[in-house]
Amino acid sequence: MSSIPVAVIQLDTQDHIDENRTKAISLVDKASSQGAQLIVLPEAIVCLGSLDKRQAAAEPLAGPTATMLREAAKRNNIYLVGGSFLEKQEGQDKVYNTCLFIGPDGNVISVYRKIHLFKIDVPGDVVFDESQVVASGEKIVTADSPFGILGFSICYDLRFPELYRALAERGACIVTVPAAFAMKTGKDHWETLLRARGIENQVFILASAQIGNKPDGSACYGRSMIIDPWGTVLARAQDSETIIMADLDMDHLAHIRRTLPVLNNRRL
Amino acid sequence: MSSIPVAVIQLDTQDHIDENRTKAISLVDKASSQGAQLIVLPEAIVCLGSLDKRQAAAEPLAGPTATMLREAAKRNNIYLVGGSFLEKQEGQDKVYNTCLFIGPDGNVISVYRKIHLFKIDVPGDVVFDESQVVASGEKIVTADSPFGILGFSICYDLRFPELYRALAERGACIVTVPAAFAMKTGKDHWETLLRARGIENQVFILASAQIGNKPDGSACYGRSMIIDPWGTVLARAQDSETIIMADLDMDHLAHIRRTLPVLNNRRL
Repeated sequence: MSSIPVAVIQLDTQDHIDENRTKAISLVDKASSQGAQLIVLPEAIVCLGSLDKRQAAAEPLAGPTATMLREAAKRNNIYLVGGSFLEKQEGQDKVYNTCLFIGPDGNVISVYRKIHLFKIDVPGDVVFDESQVVASGEKIVTADSPFGILGFSICYDLRFPELYRALAERGACIVTVPAAFAMKTGKDHWETLLRARGIENQVFILASAQIGNKPDGSACYGRSMIIDPWGTVLARAQDSETIIMADLDMDHLAHIRRTLPVLNNRRL
Repeated sequence: MSSIPVAVIQLDTQDHIDENRTKAISLVDKASSQGAQLIVLPEAIVCLGSLDKRQAAAEPLAGPTATMLREAAKRNNIYLVGGSFLEKQEGQDKVYNTCLFIGPDGNVISVYRKIHLFKIDVPGDVVFDESQVVASGEKIVTADSPFGILGFSICYDLRFPELYRALAERGACIVTVPAAFAMKTGKDHWETLLRARGIENQVFILASAQIGNKPDGSACYGRSMIIDPWGTVLARAQDSETIIMADLDMDHLAHIRRTLPVLNNRRL
């Protein structure tokens, strides 16, 4: 398949869990009706309130969110990267920030747990330490698909180029970045880092973001993007809940890798 | 020293060797007269003609270019990153693309040989394989200075985030990127990759570029830059031979590393 219709969904998730889930799924249905075969949701689709509320919303891997995502993938006959939700494992205090990749048969193909946990300390402005509640994932995850190999990451992972190199080494040609980037850092770092990850690894980047002011007083930057392996922004979301779409041209990826063989020129 | 006046020099080097050297040194003198204490020249300050001419201009490490750079550093009482020139070692066919870091006493502090060699193959547009003439350097290089630890790279290295991570791990807080980026790639990749290297490693980036059309028919992109550890472009060169300057605020770097402790949050 040389041209892949994809959709990236931007959400303004708040702290009403049922409403959040319903809205996310309705946008998946809508993106599918517009022809997308691969759809990517943002980070934290279930709850974006206080850390306490987020933690209280944690659920088992095979819980209600997974069920809704699996049903949506099957109903629409699409591949779905379910953004992320907080996963509670039995007998553990901490939770994981977990991304499911689901096939058109409704089965879970892969599970990625966020490796790098966000920490920022600007007293009086933004103070947040994800590791208070969330445990780090330990595994780099890629998955086969009819579109090529997908690589997975979540939000703060974006600051760590070594993860994206590892995904490219494992053959990824499409990398997904569900996120809830803060306004303060997003305005200066989001687009630059996304484009750099695309350019340096010659992969497509599907970056699905949270937008809007959240109940805990934080603000998310939005600007979801679809970026090609040359670093060109094919689609960029306006500042609202919305869907962006693009066709990923795999011949273009092959052309770029042939003309500028960066991945073969590594020395370290 | 918490604020460091630096200069980055942008050159339009052609294939007249003596003229090129003289011009480079005269801009070093000028930057020093404007107060710079650390000055960075671009890649290939001696010759930018055909590969044959470039190779013919190769010289020993302690040759005429090193002598001129050392005299300029001593005369001006400045630290000088001498961009790069082709270094010929006795009994070897291939040459190195070599960067000297020189102190105000005129002594060479460190020698960096370009690790990643540029290769591009767009038939009918840009075709270039640096490894036909140049051998890869084998060593990651940092050097102490009164301004903090400097890390070294050259041009195509910019596409390899693992090198910049290694420099940051070795304590670099200022990274220099002498370059002769092609117009075709520079227009889409230069600023994005430079800013990403600054952001992800929380270092200052001093990127000194070649500008203009060269005798071999190639065109260099220019847009030399000084970038802070937040990824903000403090200075950007216009499209001519010129000097850009900025003060590097080391307290700002410390503040960024304290508030967003990315380098401590690595997991891979």
